[in-house]
Amino acid sequence: MDAAEFRRRGKEMVDFVADYLENIEHRRVYPDVEPGYLRSMIPSEAPLEPESYEDVLKDVDRVIMPGITHWQSPHFHAYFPSASSYPALLADMLCGGLGCIGFTWGTASEATLMALLAARCKAVKCVHESDPQRSEADIISKLIAYTSEEAHSSVERAGLIGGVGIRMVATDEHFSVRAETLEKMVAEDKAAGFIPFFFCATLGTTPSCAFDKITELGPLCNAENIWMHIDAAYAGSSFICPEFRPLLDGVEFADSFNFNPHKWLLVNFDCSAMWVKKRTDLIGAFKLDPHWGIPLGRRFRSLKLWFVFRMYGQSGLQAYIRKHVELAKVFETMVKKDKRFEICAEVVLGLVCFRLKGSDELNEALLKEMTHLGRIHLVPCKLRGRFVLRFAVCGRTTELRHVQEAWTHITELSSELLLKHHS
Amino acid sequence: MDAAEFRRRGKEMVDFVADYLENIEHRRVYPDVEPGYLRSMIPSEAPLEPESYEDVLKDVDRVIMPGITHWQSPHFHAYFPSASSYPALLADMLCGGLGCIGFTWGTASEATLMALLAARCKAVKCVHESDPQRSEADIISKLIAYTSEEAHSSVERAGLIGGVGIRMVATDEHFSVRAETLEKMVAEDKAAGFIPFFFCATLGTTPSCAFDKITELGPLCNAENIWMHIDAAYAGSSFICPEFRPLLDGVEFADSFNFNPHKWLLVNFDCSAMWVKKRTDLIGAFKLDPHWGIPLGRRFRSLKLWFVFRMYGQSGLQAYIRKHVELAKVFETMVKKDKRFEICAEVVLGLVCFRLKGSDELNEALLKEMTHLGRIHLVPCKLRGRFVLRFAVCGRTTELRHVQEAWTHITELSSELLLKHHS
Repeated sequence: MDAAEFRRRGKEMVDFVADYLENIEHRRVYPDVEPGYLRSMIPSEAPLEPESYEDVLKDVDRVIMPGITHWQSPHFHAYFPSASSYPALLADMLCGGLGCIGFTWGTASEATLMALLAARCKAVKCVHESDPQRSEADIISKLIAYTSEEAHSSVERAGLIGGVGIRMVATDEHFSVRAETLEKMVAEDKAAGFIPFFFCATLGTTPSCAFDKITELGPLCNAENIWMHIDAAYAGSSFICPEFRPLLDGVEFADSFNFNPHKWLLVNFDCSAMWVKKRTDLIGAFKLDPHWGIPLGRRFRSLKLWFVFRMYGQSGLQAYIRKHVELAKVFETMVKKDKRFEICAEVVLGLVCFRLKGSDELNEALLKEMTHLGRIHLVPCKLRGRFVLRFAVCGRTTELRHVQEAWTHITELSSELLLKHHS
Repeated sequence: MDAAEFRRRGKEMVDFVADYLENIEHRRVYPDVEPGYLRSMIPSEAPLEPESYEDVLKDVDRVIMPGITHWQSPHFHAYFPSASSYPALLADMLCGGLGCIGFTWGTASEATLMALLAARCKAVKCVHESDPQRSEADIISKLIAYTSEEAHSSVERAGLIGGVGIRMVATDEHFSVRAETLEKMVAEDKAAGFIPFFFCATLGTTPSCAFDKITELGPLCNAENIWMHIDAAYAGSSFICPEFRPLLDGVEFADSFNFNPHKWLLVNFDCSAMWVKKRTDLIGAFKLDPHWGIPLGRRFRSLKLWFVFRMYGQSGLQAYIRKHVELAKVFETMVKKDKRFEICAEVVLGLVCFRLKGSDELNEALLKEMTHLGRIHLVPCKLRGRFVLRFAVCGRTTELRHVQEAWTHITELSSELLLKHHS
């Protein structure tokens, strides 16, 4: 779908929403379908090839609308109001169109936190069974979680919130956690009276898109009764391509898994998908289904996934992932050809970590000038203590020429900078 | 703004978004304004009267766009991609238009959880200072949080996640927590070696919209060094009307406060506003500002609030709240006139708790029939162990006639039911 079609479809959608809201009171406010009615009406897999937008819209009426509780109906008197107004809808359209992400001090990544809390609950129960005298507080005070030194800061924050110890595991030359290292730490901690209970593996770390060796780590965690959670926030989308599926080998040992379709699967923010091996582990940890109460709400996020799956098809989504990876390879090749630069981590997917050979100060100055000019936007990372530039292929519309222009811009700035530096 | 204007403005917005995305690469990808640039460009208060949509859109260009980092630009290579696609935007418009809220087993209400965790961190530090030998785990195991027996289940879940004890405080005949009751519990717990540290007060409980007496509870909490968090999820919006402000008396004693504009302030889901007295309490609890890292993202939610404030003005929002309260009063009057029914809690805002005089089974049967027919939608609650029906005024378009029709429907069903019951 291009911009021209979006203009047409978007205007139709505005009318669809206005029609819906103008006539909502004539609809049955509460649906008379049974939970699960949907399953037999939709295919069990995403379509291989893109479908027509007309077919998707027809299915909105055929399969979605019969299951809707009409919260905006004047006949709705349940719970409390769920606000809606035309100006807010317009602002939300603008918010989606801008697609910019605000940074905040918000709580930890929910999926990691939930996995850690479920694991904590399971560990407490397990220790309690073998030693009923021991108090829950005492057990919790001995629990130890592990994650890569390269992992996202939200893992550390989850440990902080959960009130458990968290240890950072050193990585190998590819920035990957290896079983040998974790095994040693676990043994030491057990000998000191601690209880290892949780390991957050990362597939595609934030700094360099490194992959922990879960084929080794999984059996270790399973044997040690350590919950293995996999954070594949960015890389997870790439696993829809058969050629990238080997990166996921070892997932069979995981207790939980998360990735963010809002990163790389053409689904606007926010949309994060979590899988858990045993549902009861989560249910037990969060005391679900209170007798009565308004559970926490969530937006109808699956609608976005569904539109995207159908309009792109598996083939379209695969092509999109592959294009990004290819553009990263092009960028890598250009960096490698210029002897003033070095590549700092293996390029596996759409991220290239590179730097000017030389001091951190030099690279910091390069990034500062880039940011000052505002023509391209990169953020840095630290790898082995060194200041490194991250070039991520991000945009839906990023083409070869943008990558080439970006590289020309970077090399021109570097030349000026090196000239100044040497004079 | 009515549906006709929404159709026009919505189509303009579709073009605005398409224009934006088609020309995004010509924009400076990273803004060159300083944080805080916005403050001097916008008024410090919401407008009293509604403004014109043209003025709002002009300000989008004048004050908002200069501060935007263009995440969808092909020149954006920072962090990881933030997905966007036309089908997802269309689905998001539909999601907003439907405005239905999914129920899920998700984590606890974030605001309550964050307040509890910040209070936990503060309490641990405080005890630690006077008794440096005592371990953090030991202190946490003695911490006690309190909330009303009428409070939302998310408070209990926050305690569960935070690993602290949580006690339910009994309420008076108005379903309000009183200082006397809490004071006694705190004294007993202290005598038993526990450390009271957190009280979640509710202004407008979910079952009956009751208000804890924070004018009494606030001084007690302050004196006992107990963090007082106020959950005013629903009722908070009503405080924009001077006549409802007295319900907020005592807020000056609070450490944190939360309400959900997405409930009753015409801002589509989700939008929740939290205030904290001392920023440093939160910053300390969550180890903010990591050296490097991608903080958790959030959508540009304030845009919705801003559109709504400007398009309705304070006067329009106040009128909206007052209309809902008035409709609830109308419903209450009708219930009171029918001797077969009783009112079960004082009607303060837009919620009426009522029941047929008689058994729980009778009232359950009434609700079941209502739900089966699907003409109106209500949910029940338990008050003092009895099954009670909640009639909440929810819809933006709910008018007097809808409330009257609902009551006619309820009384007709009740007559049939009572006839069957007595025969």
